[in-house]
Amino acid sequence: MRAELVCIGTELLIGQVINTNATWLGQELAAMGVSLLWVTTVGDNPGRMRQALADAAARADLVITTGGLGPTADDITMATLADLLGEPLEERPEVKQHIEAYFAQRRRPISPTNLKMALFPPSADLIPNPVGTAWGASVRLGAAWVMTYPGVPQELHAMWGAWARPAIAARGQGVIHSVLLRYVGIGESVLAEGLADLLEGENPSVAPYAGEGEVHLRATARAGTLAEAQAALAPVLERLRAIAPYYYGEDDQTLPVVVGEALLRAAQTLATAESCTGGLVASRLTDVPGSSRWLRGGLVSYATDLKTSYLSVPDAVIAEHGVVSQAVAEGMATGARSAMSADWGVATTGWAGPAPDLPAEQVGLVWIAVAGPDGVSAECCRFGAFPRATIKQRASQAALDLLRRRINACLRDGA
Amino acid sequence: MRAELVCIGTELLIGQVINTNATWLGQELAAMGVSLLWVTTVGDNPGRMRQALADAAARADLVITTGGLGPTADDITMATLADLLGEPLEERPEVKQHIEAYFAQRRRPISPTNLKMALFPPSADLIPNPVGTAWGASVRLGAAWVMTYPGVPQELHAMWGAWARPAIAARGQGVIHSVLLRYVGIGESVLAEGLADLLEGENPSVAPYAGEGEVHLRATARAGTLAEAQAALAPVLERLRAIAPYYYGEDDQTLPVVVGEALLRAAQTLATAESCTGGLVASRLTDVPGSSRWLRGGLVSYATDLKTSYLSVPDAVIAEHGVVSQAVAEGMATGARSAMSADWGVATTGWAGPAPDLPAEQVGLVWIAVAGPDGVSAECCRFGAFPRATIKQRASQAALDLLRRRINACLRDGA
Repeated sequence: MRAELVCIGTELLIGQVINTNATWLGQELAAMGVSLLWVTTVGDNPGRMRQALADAAARADLVITTGGLGPTADDITMATLADLLGEPLEERPEVKQHIEAYFAQRRRPISPTNLKMALFPPSADLIPNPVGTAWGASVRLGAAWVMTYPGVPQELHAMWGAWARPAIAARGQGVIHSVLLRYVGIGESVLAEGLADLLEGENPSVAPYAGEGEVHLRATARAGTLAEAQAALAPVLERLRAIAPYYYGEDDQTLPVVVGEALLRAAQTLATAESCTGGLVASRLTDVPGSSRWLRGGLVSYATDLKTSYLSVPDAVIAEHGVVSQAVAEGMATGARSAMSADWGVATTGWAGPAPDLPAEQVGLVWIAVAGPDGVSAECCRFGAFPRATIKQRASQAALDLLRRRINACLRDGA
Repeated sequence: MRAELVCIGTELLIGQVINTNATWLGQELAAMGVSLLWVTTVGDNPGRMRQALADAAARADLVITTGGLGPTADDITMATLADLLGEPLEERPEVKQHIEAYFAQRRRPISPTNLKMALFPPSADLIPNPVGTAWGASVRLGAAWVMTYPGVPQELHAMWGAWARPAIAARGQGVIHSVLLRYVGIGESVLAEGLADLLEGENPSVAPYAGEGEVHLRATARAGTLAEAQAALAPVLERLRAIAPYYYGEDDQTLPVVVGEALLRAAQTLATAESCTGGLVASRLTDVPGSSRWLRGGLVSYATDLKTSYLSVPDAVIAEHGVVSQAVAEGMATGARSAMSADWGVATTGWAGPAPDLPAEQVGLVWIAVAGPDGVSAECCRFGAFPRATIKQRASQAALDLLRRRINACLRDGA
């Protein structure tokens, strides 16, 4: 299947928004064996949008659009599509009802322009939006299958997962089986070095991607049936899963999810004490549904005196070693564990910069520590002079990785 | 001047690389008053590349290409351009010399394929590459001005700054001045309703965009000089800044930045107490450089007993009202303020879901509270059954907005 993507929105053209939708859909389509051959971005302009849609539909089997499905006057994707189809726009009662319920639930007034999102060409199948009000349409335009999605990534992802993945798979020939493997603590090029033979393979194929503070390998096999594809992939997966201690999870198993699963297995709890990550470790952990079963809580000890008063790190230790030190990181982890009555404590302290009085080589220096039933350990990380948010993200990743390795070691020893 | 961008590279189509070049060039062109109307991405395929270049040159005054200028077999941008021009490729001695010197300086052997980068159509002007070996070409193709750049961002940026900026300015027509205005607590459609006249304007123009839990308006004016553009924009900005209490900042002034600025102005400090946001409020605040000057710290009180032991919310209040209640939110905010010796306390408690025993209508119900020198207040938010990360983001946004309004009211009363 040959696909094209038409991204709609002036904010993309003036560089106000990075087109991560194109990247995400490119990965999705590649994983499903659909060849994405052409991506077009145009603004909220009827003439150019019409031209881009018509060109794409003339060349491709599948045309995906993102953007322009909202309530405002510049959201004209559906009107343009109807115009190309030679169809009117008609109100769909089920969408109208959904929009009204959405606003009623939030106790917010509904404006007449919101009901514009209930208008569709009669020949369109509806693509429900489980997380917003802008539904999509699936129609035949000439020989091409056209589907429209909103530009908000979260809505696109939800609609794609629930609707497009099964719909495309149902029209596919044969089956694609694909697994995303996750690695932390190793760079993409070093990981790739030992896998040259796999990376050159066509079926099964293995492709590396850089994640946020981690590396992903997507392993994909194509076959007549799912069982055949899984069988073809099995030896590849076995080899890729053995890359220790860097391999940690698959598909939606992010590092916080894996940490939570390990804690559930061990029937143990966790507390956090964060200085330079400023709450990001706790926030990432609480993104996991059910995290209240294993996360007791956390302290963001930004002011130095809170490290003493709440985490019992002695003033003398801070004075002797400085706030960014192994001794303070270990004291914070131990203090969080006992102050919040948890089995494990994880701590971060470092220089996220920029600060006028901070030497450049100190920016990105972070100590992480984990305290548990078997004692306390710490690691020193140097992330370099990146923006604050990047240093925080990488430090949170390093802290969660140390925690994962420590809990797993305890689980192994106890087994 | 009407511009198009043609991005070349299969790695963009399969989602292996995010197309940040398109974002960067979009910003550059907008700042120079050049309208970027169309962005096309194609792979390393001669037929589609030829088509994309020919289409763009037929529509635009200026066509910019990125990618496909390197030494390997799939780098075919220059050959495709020469083919469209009906010209051969000829070696340019100055480029050959540059490539040889580049390799000699790095003590690296030069391979014959590297010298492919010295081949250009005879009608092309050369665009030097100060940081690499892939030079670009500037040529006339039909009525369009075409320039080619490498895909490596660092090389593109260096060549663009040294060559394209002055070249485009020399042909230029005036200046664009653009301001991004930020609003919170109001939906895109309601905000747009009162601004129909501005949204229909062409110069100055105003366009709405949905942000994460907020709405943005981009106001833009075009004129002969910056002073003229600013003068044209002034009455529009005055009107857009008066949309109270929703308007809160401009350009890079995110909500955490604005809160920090208000605290600095008031010479006051802040502490957080988070239940459902799980550290996200603190993490967003600590993304702001210098936040240690006004953020004392924060508690993630995920376990109910921590609300009692650390924030002094009485057991009886929790038992009577439940953990998600106005009384508990206010108690947490007051407790954070006094426990961490801060002037302000901000708190969140709510149902982020999903949980098997939680009624569906409760998911997304969040109480936020702010305690300050002038007392405590709370608001109830209903975000609906979104994914956890979305509910957390919107709750953090609502909490920071209440905090902003409260601090500003105090600053006004004190003034």
